[in-house]
Amino acid sequence: MNLRIPGPTPVPPEVLQAMAKQMINHRGPEFAEIIGDITARLKRLFQTENDLYILTSSGTGAMEAAVVNFFSPGDRVLVASIGAFGDRFAAIAKAFGAEVEKLDFPWDSAVDPDIVEARLKADPSIKGVMVTHNETSTGVTNDLPAIAAAIRKHDRLVVVDAISSVGAIDLRTDEWGCDVVVTCSQKSWMAPPGLAMISVSPRAWEAHANAKMPRYYWDISAAKRYLDIGQTPWTPAVSVFYALQVSLAHIEEQGLANILRHHEELGRYTREGLKAMGLELFVKDERCASNVVTAVKNPEGMDLKAFLRKLRVEHGVVLAAGQAKLSSSIFRIAHLGYVSKEDIDDALSAIRIVLPQVGFSLPKARV
Amino acid sequence: MNLRIPGPTPVPPEVLQAMAKQMINHRGPEFAEIIGDITARLKRLFQTENDLYILTSSGTGAMEAAVVNFFSPGDRVLVASIGAFGDRFAAIAKAFGAEVEKLDFPWDSAVDPDIVEARLKADPSIKGVMVTHNETSTGVTNDLPAIAAAIRKHDRLVVVDAISSVGAIDLRTDEWGCDVVVTCSQKSWMAPPGLAMISVSPRAWEAHANAKMPRYYWDISAAKRYLDIGQTPWTPAVSVFYALQVSLAHIEEQGLANILRHHEELGRYTREGLKAMGLELFVKDERCASNVVTAVKNPEGMDLKAFLRKLRVEHGVVLAAGQAKLSSSIFRIAHLGYVSKEDIDDALSAIRIVLPQVGFSLPKARV
Repeated sequence: MNLRIPGPTPVPPEVLQAMAKQMINHRGPEFAEIIGDITARLKRLFQTENDLYILTSSGTGAMEAAVVNFFSPGDRVLVASIGAFGDRFAAIAKAFGAEVEKLDFPWDSAVDPDIVEARLKADPSIKGVMVTHNETSTGVTNDLPAIAAAIRKHDRLVVVDAISSVGAIDLRTDEWGCDVVVTCSQKSWMAPPGLAMISVSPRAWEAHANAKMPRYYWDISAAKRYLDIGQTPWTPAVSVFYALQVSLAHIEEQGLANILRHHEELGRYTREGLKAMGLELFVKDERCASNVVTAVKNPEGMDLKAFLRKLRVEHGVVLAAGQAKLSSSIFRIAHLGYVSKEDIDDALSAIRIVLPQVGFSLPKARV
Repeated sequence: MNLRIPGPTPVPPEVLQAMAKQMINHRGPEFAEIIGDITARLKRLFQTENDLYILTSSGTGAMEAAVVNFFSPGDRVLVASIGAFGDRFAAIAKAFGAEVEKLDFPWDSAVDPDIVEARLKADPSIKGVMVTHNETSTGVTNDLPAIAAAIRKHDRLVVVDAISSVGAIDLRTDEWGCDVVVTCSQKSWMAPPGLAMISVSPRAWEAHANAKMPRYYWDISAAKRYLDIGQTPWTPAVSVFYALQVSLAHIEEQGLANILRHHEELGRYTREGLKAMGLELFVKDERCASNVVTAVKNPEGMDLKAFLRKLRVEHGVVLAAGQAKLSSSIFRIAHLGYVSKEDIDDALSAIRIVLPQVGFSLPKARV
């Protein structure tokens, strides 16, 4: 199976095998060694010296943690959204009583940092800004350094959904001044889902001290208290810790810079391959194209459901449809984590075979 | 390693091996088949026809879900506590703005159902009662049918922490009228941690419709919407689903009644073995003794830390210390899930060797 959805991403065999290890005492010395090692590795890959905690949940849980730990009901927050996951951040903040202003940008484009800055300049009551680094639902990557700089200029909290970016797309947590950054195990880390991560800057800790949104499971004060003794407050997904320890060691061995370059190359290679078939990318300006997932416009007259089913059943290639309002107008192919040029070639050649079977004519070959 | 802590419990080899399976699309047909199968099995093991949802979290996450889905800030709730996990239920409800009345019973005893009933009779404003079925921190099992009957008599919501009970101690969700029941993957189900479960009665759904506590990740309305299409709202811990599918099939093959009897026998066997060494059980009245974990009083003059370390390092037997206020006055030995009489024999014989080395004299053998 060539799993080309943007998470869970394929897991290397030696990482899968680590999942089959027997349980240990999560309050014993072996676990303390594992969580210490993984936390140190993750901090290096987040490019941060901030605190970092590991939660047992999906990425959405970490997004909730990124809201409830730093704000109070009634706080004004700005959410810069370019897709389904930006919208999710706004929905979470709203659910917990924040007064949310959502800056909606077109879903085929990136956030305009100048518009964010203008809003912050005009409204000093906005306490923080939530932004998606890489919008998985559309295949668009935001200019996070520019956005973070705009937010820091006005001294507000920078809260980043880096779920599909960190570890695959350059994210310099400290250099760019990102106060809170969240991700999870099943994206660039090449491990199964079950764990999420959150990094917390000193400024974010200050906000935490006054934040009154209700919290228990996601409380980073509890996470800090327990990490100090090599534990998590609640029973962790032990097996995914085993997996992460193996996969993060591989990642560091290979080197983050090399991995970022690999994703750049795969992103470009995938886009070129799709365009060569006469398909149109969803992203408006290719300079904002994501290097971890590519969204393609569903060509007029093509049967999207049949396309995805045939790819899966007849070729073992699993792509993702669009999400929310894009569910029938795009499809997505991921190139994130444990993926080679050969995997992309395999997916592209299957797409090339299936397209004419579902109503899309490939361009004539040039003679 | 003979892991005798009350979770994570040891996982059978074929269940561990299932953890090593490659990722699949969590929004595809294979996953829909798995979640359908597991949900049906869990409902039978919960002895319920209520709805049941699987969350990616530890058991504490499911406890939070059991609070925020059914109550509003300011709601009066009663928490009947006999230990650290009863206290945790109260702390969660308080964190989310419930007006919590905690009925504290001695930690070596069970809840008195008559006292619960008297409180409900006296105060019609109490909306629901949270109760721990088996208090893992003390090795005491509550008389849940009697407590639930008392609560139902006054028509309040019955919210049960069954984290270390269901699947090992008889819990008749529907027959006893338990509205909300929570547990997790790493106890009686013999699977690794990472998933939690919550069952929801029609009465609980009615409460949910009016419940205003803030929620997003734990929202059972989202869980329901997605389960209807064979999915979870957020990316699930896929590998633990694989594991559960194998372990629950084994459990059903063996038969719930046989498994409950097995735990009864192991509980009695463990208690008798410990008492024969001259140790004193923590539980006051042995009729309330838990059949999944036994707490033992730390004998005067015994070095508890050295005892636990020697057992672990020299004999590969991992026991748990006490929790909260009992951290230095008891130790605990679990007999829950994938455990045989031989495992208990091995633990007991190691204890018998170590006791005299750390300051406790075994009784003289009778001649």
